Amino acid sequence: MAEEKSRWVLMATAQTPTNIAVIKYWGKRDETLILPINDSISVTLDPAHLCTTTTVAVSPAFTADRMWLNGKEIALAGGRYQNCLREIRARACDVEDKEKDIKISKKDWEKLHLHIASYNNFPTAAGLASSAAGFACLVFALGKLMNVKEDNSHLSAIARQGSGSACRSLFGGFVKWVMGKDENGSDSRAVQLVDEKHWDELVIIIAVVSSRQKETSSTRGMLDTVETSPLIQHRAKEVVPKRVLQMEEAIKKRDFPMFAQLTCADSNQFHAVCLDTSPPIFYMNDTSHRIISCVEKWNRSEGTPQVAYTFDAGPNAVMIARSRKTATLLLQRLLFYFPPKPDTDLSSYVIGDSSILEDAGIKDLNDIEALPPPPEIKDNNVTKNKGDVSYFICTRPGRGPVLISDESRALLNPETGLPK
Amino acid sequence: MAEEKSRWVLMATAQTPTNIAVIKYWGKRDETLILPINDSISVTLDPAHLCTTTTVAVSPAFTADRMWLNGKEIALAGGRYQNCLREIRARACDVEDKEKDIKISKKDWEKLHLHIASYNNFPTAAGLASSAAGFACLVFALGKLMNVKEDNSHLSAIARQGSGSACRSLFGGFVKWVMGKDENGSDSRAVQLVDEKHWDELVIIIAVVSSRQKETSSTRGMLDTVETSPLIQHRAKEVVPKRVLQMEEAIKKRDFPMFAQLTCADSNQFHAVCLDTSPPIFYMNDTSHRIISCVEKWNRSEGTPQVAYTFDAGPNAVMIARSRKTATLLLQRLLFYFPPKPDTDLSSYVIGDSSILEDAGIKDLNDIEALPPPPEIKDNNVTKNKGDVSYFICTRPGRGPVLISDESRALLNPETGLPK
Repeated sequence: MAEEKSRWVLMATAQTPTNIAVIKYWGKRDETLILPINDSISVTLDPAHLCTTTTVAVSPAFTADRMWLNGKEIALAGGRYQNCLREIRARACDVEDKEKDIKISKKDWEKLHLHIASYNNFPTAAGLASSAAGFACLVFALGKLMNVKEDNSHLSAIARQGSGSACRSLFGGFVKWVMGKDENGSDSRAVQLVDEKHWDELVIIIAVVSSRQKETSSTRGMLDTVETSPLIQHRAKEVVPKRVLQMEEAIKKRDFPMFAQLTCADSNQFHAVCLDTSPPIFYMNDTSHRIISCVEKWNRSEGTPQVAYTFDAGPNAVMIARSRKTATLLLQRLLFYFPPKPDTDLSSYVIGDSSILEDAGIKDLNDIEALPPPPEIKDNNVTKNKGDVSYFICTRPGRGPVLISDESRALLNPETGLPK
Repeated sequence: MAEEKSRWVLMATAQTPTNIAVIKYWGKRDETLILPINDSISVTLDPAHLCTTTTVAVSPAFTADRMWLNGKEIALAGGRYQNCLREIRARACDVEDKEKDIKISKKDWEKLHLHIASYNNFPTAAGLASSAAGFACLVFALGKLMNVKEDNSHLSAIARQGSGSACRSLFGGFVKWVMGKDENGSDSRAVQLVDEKHWDELVIIIAVVSSRQKETSSTRGMLDTVETSPLIQHRAKEVVPKRVLQMEEAIKKRDFPMFAQLTCADSNQFHAVCLDTSPPIFYMNDTSHRIISCVEKWNRSEGTPQVAYTFDAGPNAVMIARSRKTATLLLQRLLFYFPPKPDTDLSSYVIGDSSILEDAGIKDLNDIEALPPPPEIKDNNVTKNKGDVSYFICTRPGRGPVLISDESRALLNPETGLPK
């Protein structure tokens, strides 16, 4: 590293998906290392609709580690960022960029500062696991920049120390976070069960639910649950291990009825142990309950599950439909029960893969008003709930992290290393 | 029994309280005999505010067993009524009324028909355990009419076969329903822990919460929970037995902090196993959650519990305040968060023991509007929820069933045996 060439900036940009657990992670056995009390399984969401893009840069001109999230500088002082940076720096290797005539040796990384810019293509505040995609992307991008040799599963153990569920965002398709046994957490990491092509009929619709209440952070919530719930240990030790095996089998066989039954039951049990916490934690609200009722009623009337639902630490519903056809029927039902407020722009009410909206034959708000009640409704006393859902996102299972080589898509200026 | 005197009518009238469980009954091991999977403990509510009055009559002129509930004839065909009638008839004894010159021998009861009239002094549909008070009152009144020698604890095992929680309404104060072991259910009955004078500082405020949803019946709900919840057996076998012992101790010692902690935790765990049911059961709604938050926030800010809350199979909150002073402060908080709709008559919005309203210094709706935010609220962004509560009932722990000798208060005409 030549001092006279201290103006260079070396960058890497990556895109990483978010994920939604179908067997839930709730409860840590180690707060600092973020080691869970049970295995969990997730589906990775298509980054076309929900992802984080992160550019990391290194330069001898940088005087401190700095980070910008969605264009705004944030403090990197938090232990979780520091843990990730420390762990990834410890695995950095020699890097040579012949074109730019840059050489960084393994030991240089200890002294060099980093700039990080991260951007979510979905609202951060919507409670859609932005920290999972964020930490996964940070670790993945730094791994590329620093020529880290570890595979994604080993990287996931680093991302885990930023945010537990981030470890599952290092892969596409269906992913298992193995809780591990080691005290140092080295075996607590994600493995891919199947890639995103294995079960590609699945369609995912997310209802972003309006909420009047401020929610308990999941860190605080799971700590309280482990300390006070008389049911959580039974869940972690007796219920989840069996469910994980059944869920792996259901995914392998593409057994939708089994998959749906396990997904719904595990989401409900996660919220049950939240309620069993002292003081109790409520993440779902009346709108969440109404969405569950709508899906349960339909599933029952069909005799076999059409749609699975799952809720994380918030009121948003993530619904997984067995096929595109089913997703179309689901969207019709959702729009029937939860129409937008008057003067809403349809293209901002149903976002993501809008082709499902087309399949459902809905071109404007009049088409929504004209939707007939679902046939499974017996009484005509239907309450429509305008405004209870902020918007819907149509998506599908998706791929894991990718490196973006096109420098024009980097979030940092290649000359200054500052946000564009 | 002389045929020529077949016009006589013999009657008994009783008044029986309702009760609210502080350690919940949820789940049966025998559906017909109504045998529970765990002990439960309740507090009996003052019959001055919540009770059932039942008149039972017998006459050789009656041609069938008939019953009127709140003035409307209802079918007695249901197995639960038939079980109670059969069991109580089997224990009937000789009866002699010298004044009226009536003699009924033990064996006559098999052939004689009964008229029953029952009246609740509170809205039946409000989800306030009307069936508990109803079956308890039916069995108690029939026991008196038929000169049944069994004590109230033995009568409770009959009332239990009408509605499980009815057995706990045979006593005042705090009552334990011992689950028992016998297959025939003979030892599954209620015992009084302490009478209503033991802990008479307690004040109870019930929030009758408006609901948009039709609720799952508790019979159906607990059946589904036992069949599908992976957590219910752990609750019944591991958690509740310990809690019952602690609760008995707390009641005996009038240890309010322990009482409140156990009451709230057990209510929340009952709703947790409902949520762990497939399909999930939701009894609490957003209003219930807001009431819990209000109480939890206040309890935390005081450092020690001021109020316990518990919810049955519906959204209504039953709050138990440690003293009259605390109840006054609770009512001020509740009216602050949940003011009545405009033009509501205050005397219909806070019913029962209205002296607590006076203590709270509230004479009209303007006084409610003038209530300052509770000091434990940090942010000034308070959402007031007009109309989310239908009304409040102020009451206290109360006595068990009593016989009403004043015939003018009977619900049946002493000449005809028909409703007055």
